[in-house]
Amino acid sequence: MIRFYNGNILCFTPDLQIRSDEVWIDGSRICYVGPACEDAPLFDRQIDLRGDLLMPGFKNAHTHTAMTFLRSLADDRELQGWLREIVWPNEAKLTDEAVYIFTTLGIMEYLSSGITASFDMYVHNEAYAKANVDAGFRTVICSGLNNFDADVENIEREYLRFNSYHELVSYRLGIHAEYTTSLDRMEYLASLAEKYKAPCFTHLCETKAEAEGCIERYGMSATQVLDKIGFFRYGGGGFHCCYLTEEDIRYFSDHGLWAVTCPASNLKLASGIAPVEKMRKCGVQFAIGTDGASSNNALDFFREMYLVSTLQKIYEEDAAACPAGEVLKMACVNGARALSLPDCDDIAPGKLADLIVIDLNRPNMHPLNNPAVNLVYSGSKENIRLTMVNGKILYENGEFMIGQSPEEVYRAADAFCRGLIR
Amino acid sequence: MIRFYNGNILCFTPDLQIRSDEVWIDGSRICYVGPACEDAPLFDRQIDLRGDLLMPGFKNAHTHTAMTFLRSLADDRELQGWLREIVWPNEAKLTDEAVYIFTTLGIMEYLSSGITASFDMYVHNEAYAKANVDAGFRTVICSGLNNFDADVENIEREYLRFNSYHELVSYRLGIHAEYTTSLDRMEYLASLAEKYKAPCFTHLCETKAEAEGCIERYGMSATQVLDKIGFFRYGGGGFHCCYLTEEDIRYFSDHGLWAVTCPASNLKLASGIAPVEKMRKCGVQFAIGTDGASSNNALDFFREMYLVSTLQKIYEEDAAACPAGEVLKMACVNGARALSLPDCDDIAPGKLADLIVIDLNRPNMHPLNNPAVNLVYSGSKENIRLTMVNGKILYENGEFMIGQSPEEVYRAADAFCRGLIR
Repeated sequence: MIRFYNGNILCFTPDLQIRSDEVWIDGSRICYVGPACEDAPLFDRQIDLRGDLLMPGFKNAHTHTAMTFLRSLADDRELQGWLREIVWPNEAKLTDEAVYIFTTLGIMEYLSSGITASFDMYVHNEAYAKANVDAGFRTVICSGLNNFDADVENIEREYLRFNSYHELVSYRLGIHAEYTTSLDRMEYLASLAEKYKAPCFTHLCETKAEAEGCIERYGMSATQVLDKIGFFRYGGGGFHCCYLTEEDIRYFSDHGLWAVTCPASNLKLASGIAPVEKMRKCGVQFAIGTDGASSNNALDFFREMYLVSTLQKIYEEDAAACPAGEVLKMACVNGARALSLPDCDDIAPGKLADLIVIDLNRPNMHPLNNPAVNLVYSGSKENIRLTMVNGKILYENGEFMIGQSPEEVYRAADAFCRGLIR
Repeated sequence: MIRFYNGNILCFTPDLQIRSDEVWIDGSRICYVGPACEDAPLFDRQIDLRGDLLMPGFKNAHTHTAMTFLRSLADDRELQGWLREIVWPNEAKLTDEAVYIFTTLGIMEYLSSGITASFDMYVHNEAYAKANVDAGFRTVICSGLNNFDADVENIEREYLRFNSYHELVSYRLGIHAEYTTSLDRMEYLASLAEKYKAPCFTHLCETKAEAEGCIERYGMSATQVLDKIGFFRYGGGGFHCCYLTEEDIRYFSDHGLWAVTCPASNLKLASGIAPVEKMRKCGVQFAIGTDGASSNNALDFFREMYLVSTLQKIYEEDAAACPAGEVLKMACVNGARALSLPDCDDIAPGKLADLIVIDLNRPNMHPLNNPAVNLVYSGSKENIRLTMVNGKILYENGEFMIGQSPEEVYRAADAFCRGLIR
């Protein structure tokens, strides 16, 4: 058992609050949250928080982890040329080994920014899942069915395999996007959703061109196309959601679908600013994603939280838009629920021990006028003192405990990239 | 003498380049940049860069350092109410002691984000200057003349005093802004500029309301008002510059004036996005500022550099806008020149030793496809391994060497803030 004491916890039940409590971990779960008590059990380790803040980890609700291999390979370029000349030809070079290395690199970056779970859509899922389990990281894989997949039935095999693979891994159904997936393939995915009563996800209205293209193809929005085929019958949601129509927004709200906003990626690719505040006021629930390092280029949840809020202020021309507390809830609580990980959403007895410790003894956290606001508006990776996933400490004081040497990961990553097209 | 070896340097002469060289420091200046050599002198300290990157420090070209006291005190509020109810009444409580503490806190945050000089406009300049000298930090104070100043002649006294106060301190002439300063006071400032042949600075067109208000008051833009009175005869520039007219932009370009962009503050206060790319293409030279922590809320140059570039991509709807290399140059080279610190602009023999070491052994810096691009798009404070100002190491491996205990600074800062209006 592990004991955290002499600090504060930030939790979300019933509302966002900071209070002075101990937290004990037994195996993979939190077994006690409350004041110090005399009849405490024997602990394997007691961690003095020294006044620091323990809170639920951030959940990265949309990413392509292994795309770390494309970080800073070709930036400041027009989107379509970048995809055709850099991304796709280099992705064709990816191997299982490469995906394993670049997934591990991405996980390290997650841990250093306080992320404790990811919702990932990419390729080479066997190597991807193994990298997560080996590192001790929690992930939900999302299928990304599209017209380039040679073996459509592989989705169902993966669904069954990865949902009983390891306690750290689960699998959700998804298509890459309407604009890359034929109607019959989308219908096939919807039939799997019906068979397994499972939620479904997709990239949705990331760019204006994509949203307009769907109207041309189908005479209706992608959300309406997917609704017609029963894609969202068991819930799910969309990644990006920059250009939903008024009707789509109502549909998302009425059906409890998740909108996952990826502000850094949308900025860097000049895709647009998702109308998060407007959608939120219409009842749409948001989680937050980094998207891949190819377009972000970081996997830094402090950056994302900051952007989710401040971009809404500029978009709405209202400094009061999208307040910090709401953004924290999106990052910690909503993220867990969007990933179907309800036991990872808060600090409470019985919850899984996916948590972080925020170092408050840094200049960006003082004065302590409001630590929760500091997290969103002045927090940074320097404040991540410790990251725990499933009861295991994977990152502490800048060091990684993931069963691999960081230097080896860097070396292997750099070596692979020397063979890429630039 | 100090020797940095076994790494790479990023420098800007003649163009941005990374090369494998040693750097030696003698006193406050760089005395050698080149390959290792046999007849090296005796060194006081030899620092193994272990492949890391040594580069010029970032220059924070617009800030109000001691405004750290307002960080996260009242956020997500409409601008005018925030100023009237929170900022102004609390500023009235500031003492010399408080400004000293909150300046020190701000300097710590600068050092941890690789900033080696600041251009500051605020109050209690005696305490402010002392805090900088005591910490060993380089600063340029800018006067902020406005209608609330009881003693207008104090500007000239400060100009003379702080320009011969200490090698780390200098002083530039400025008004707070057109909308807070009467024409006769602006003219007085311009007369000082004439007397001392000195550049002049001002907050300029930060908000749309301010730009429109000037047209109503004077029938012309603030830039034109200032031009008419000779304010910019010896150069200088404007802070923010979100709403310059086409004519103003040409004026800035023709007169070699500096535009200092503060993207994070402009976002958080919903002021707007400065058209940096458009102005840059018209020949306007940019430097970058954090503005104060009251509106930012961090003093993090990685955040600023990232925003300078990515906000232009969304504003121009062009992923190629404002490339990373240009932003790095604004941060390091232009910043130094805007602050009239030409000896702080690069890594070269004879230059002042205001430099930083970037820790490349972090996941956000790999793969090393392009380290310069990594700095702008995935860099963070975790990458600041060392910050040196005027030949002295003030920050290394997370520790501050500024003659004061960080814990004491935090404690004093927190204690002062308990008495503030919320």
